[in-house]
Amino acid sequence: MQAFHYTAVPAEPAEGREGVAIRWAIGQNVNAPHFILRVIEIQPEASTAYHQHPWEHEVFILEGQATVRSANGEVLAGPGTCVYVAPNEWHQFLNAGKGLLRFICVIPKPE
Amino acid sequence: MQAFHYTAVPAEPAEGREGVAIRWAIGQNVNAPHFILRVIEIQPEASTAYHQHPWEHEVFILEGQATVRSANGEVLAGPGTCVYVAPNEWHQFLNAGKGLLRFICVIPKPE
Repeated sequence: MQAFHYTAVPAEPAEGREGVAIRWAIGQNVNAPHFILRVIEIQPEASTAYHQHPWEHEVFILEGQATVRSANGEVLAGPGTCVYVAPNEWHQFLNAGKGLLRFICVIPKPE
Repeated sequence: MQAFHYTAVPAEPAEGREGVAIRWAIGQNVNAPHFILRVIEIQPEASTAYHQHPWEHEVFILEGQATVRSANGEVLAGPGTCVYVAPNEWHQFLNAGKGLLRFICVIPKPE
């Protein structure tokens, strides 16, 4: 059993996306066999890329306000909101507020 | 893409554990293929069972103070703490504080 604050895991800048940092909080560091829990932080005015990939996301908003964009439009999501992105769905997370947007994003372990 | 507040998912009492409620927040409800994100709430004085099982837990403390017990002893875990319970490890989550303990607990989809 391992316990550590998520800030003990280094934040890595997201490739090509200014203002987005990812902490691979529970994953390879503990030899997790099936899925990886990341903590993602997005600065005001910043966003992840609008993209798709064959794996899903299970997201829980911790702090701040997100606009979540999909092929069907946009929704606002605040703390406590769960977001499910199915495999291959187009998606994007944008910071909709003036403060930091922080959320958990769980993905399957890459093959 | 689906977005909903975690409180929109009904809280189910944990079998045989007074003061413990589990919301199966992202899982069967959205047809998630690989893992399930639950939001667990433990009342003051309450705890999960001290037990083991062949699947892992990836945990993120949202609110309150937990004592996390394992075969190696106990640690205190507050908001922002990540906890990894490996497959087959003995473990227990106890509310160590006076208020609600709330945490995310991700498990693999049962076979």
